Amino acid sequence: MKIALVGIGKIAIDQHVPSIAASNDWELMATVSRSGTVEGVPAFNDLGTMLAERPDISAVSLCLPPVPRYEYAAACLKAGRHVMLEKPPGATLAEIHALNAIARDADVTLFATWHSRMAKGVHAAKAALAGKTIKHGHIDWKENVRQWHPDQDWVFEPGGMGVLDPGINALSIMTEVLPNPVHLQSAVLHTPSNRQTPIRAEMKFTSNVTASFDWLKEGEQTWEQRFTATDGTVVHLLDGGNRCVVDGEERALDALGEYPALYARMAELVKNGQSDVDLSPMVHVSDIMTLARREIAPAFDW
Amino acid sequence: MKIALVGIGKIAIDQHVPSIAASNDWELMATVSRSGTVEGVPAFNDLGTMLAERPDISAVSLCLPPVPRYEYAAACLKAGRHVMLEKPPGATLAEIHALNAIARDADVTLFATWHSRMAKGVHAAKAALAGKTIKHGHIDWKENVRQWHPDQDWVFEPGGMGVLDPGINALSIMTEVLPNPVHLQSAVLHTPSNRQTPIRAEMKFTSNVTASFDWLKEGEQTWEQRFTATDGTVVHLLDGGNRCVVDGEERALDALGEYPALYARMAELVKNGQSDVDLSPMVHVSDIMTLARREIAPAFDW
Repeated sequence: MKIALVGIGKIAIDQHVPSIAASNDWELMATVSRSGTVEGVPAFNDLGTMLAERPDISAVSLCLPPVPRYEYAAACLKAGRHVMLEKPPGATLAEIHALNAIARDADVTLFATWHSRMAKGVHAAKAALAGKTIKHGHIDWKENVRQWHPDQDWVFEPGGMGVLDPGINALSIMTEVLPNPVHLQSAVLHTPSNRQTPIRAEMKFTSNVTASFDWLKEGEQTWEQRFTATDGTVVHLLDGGNRCVVDGEERALDALGEYPALYARMAELVKNGQSDVDLSPMVHVSDIMTLARREIAPAFDW
Repeated sequence: MKIALVGIGKIAIDQHVPSIAASNDWELMATVSRSGTVEGVPAFNDLGTMLAERPDISAVSLCLPPVPRYEYAAACLKAGRHVMLEKPPGATLAEIHALNAIARDADVTLFATWHSRMAKGVHAAKAALAGKTIKHGHIDWKENVRQWHPDQDWVFEPGGMGVLDPGINALSIMTEVLPNPVHLQSAVLHTPSNRQTPIRAEMKFTSNVTASFDWLKEGEQTWEQRFTATDGTVVHLLDGGNRCVVDGEERALDALGEYPALYARMAELVKNGQSDVDLSPMVHVSDIMTLARREIAPAFDW
């Protein structure tokens, strides 16, 4: 199946291009970007032109920041193309509800991806907690924004979500592995005095689940979740979900990496004529932004 | 049908009690409150006791602030009672999704009410815009918080929503009357330097719909919406939706007031075994809280 990539930045080059190249389902036939290109692949700098000139390309994968994403996604769906969205699927919940309706009307696939859900240990964690009741849990998602998003000022602009941008990865795993949904009870957001979005966040959910997101972590980077069930089972996800330890024992991992697994899933959805739009990680982020107490943190500069 | 009221404050006394008294469907059989009572009605100060001692009461109407509401609603639904929620239905979207699931499991009615949708001109406005395309629109929702919420500090605490508490009334009307959904494109929130929630908000939605919420309006209070369709139709809702003028002509109004209409609708839902949980006004508020640029406003004191 033929696919186009829109938005040729770091994530497209590092993850999407090699995942498509390694896939038996997909062939990269075009890119759309104002600046980036992929060697050997026809490059467009305008989406409308690509859609008009390449009716043979049935699917489009969008790797744009959340704020501009809606217009591109709506245009692709209305042109009858299947669409795959990087996380988060948009800047607002209402716009994803709208995209969902457009996809249904156009009878095409919409896939709101959560790449961290495809981390290699997530299935094992979900299986280990299935049918159980959570007694307590904690998430630590602590990384260095200067290392992972150098000079990307948009992450601190409205809609950029700040530390909730990596944090939504943690929440996408949490919502996948927990046997029952939780909801936010309280949160504190720490926003640098010269920025719009939080750099540190503390959350308290029901079922005694807490989470701590920090974007100023130097040295070892920490992406871990640990859940204890009432029957004593302890599930520990490490390395962003790519290792799973249950009651002290390493569990077998999935074979495919995150992005190759997303493209395999997209192929399956298109073949089955289905969509997959689970907004629960984004609902938690919206709830955090709505309910949190806000504190002012020291100014942040790169 | 027998009903209990939980949370006997200003809104319960001013609106709920007289609406139930005037209804042919409902009889007020109990109140639950730590402080308030209603003359001639058995008063409980604990919900669990009321649920245990009064199995004859099949429905509960909750008039509590949004933050404590979930635990009460969940307890009532799990006890097999139909539940009616004041707006907004909760402090988070995730908790309403959870309540919805509990209501389905218990096979009882959950009604997330939006009283402003029952304002007397809303049906006329919706009918006048049906099938049309919006060219532009504007909402002005400007009132004096000192008049309407004197000394209620909780409105400025996290979860209290600030000016988005009256603003969600405007959004509940907007989502009802517009022929197609809109979504937020940008917003600015002005939060007093000594408070947690906004006192003024400016929103820009798709379809050229803008909104302006202000909680410091003295003198005449303004609750108006005006929508112009591409065919030239102009729909003007005034007095919080209680007057509707289409192309300069006053339209006929509904007979029932807002709260009597809510209790009539609740009776209908219970009789039909249905629920009514439309979260779209709250989704817009969450989107505003997520996407807005935040500015600091002068300190606010009562």
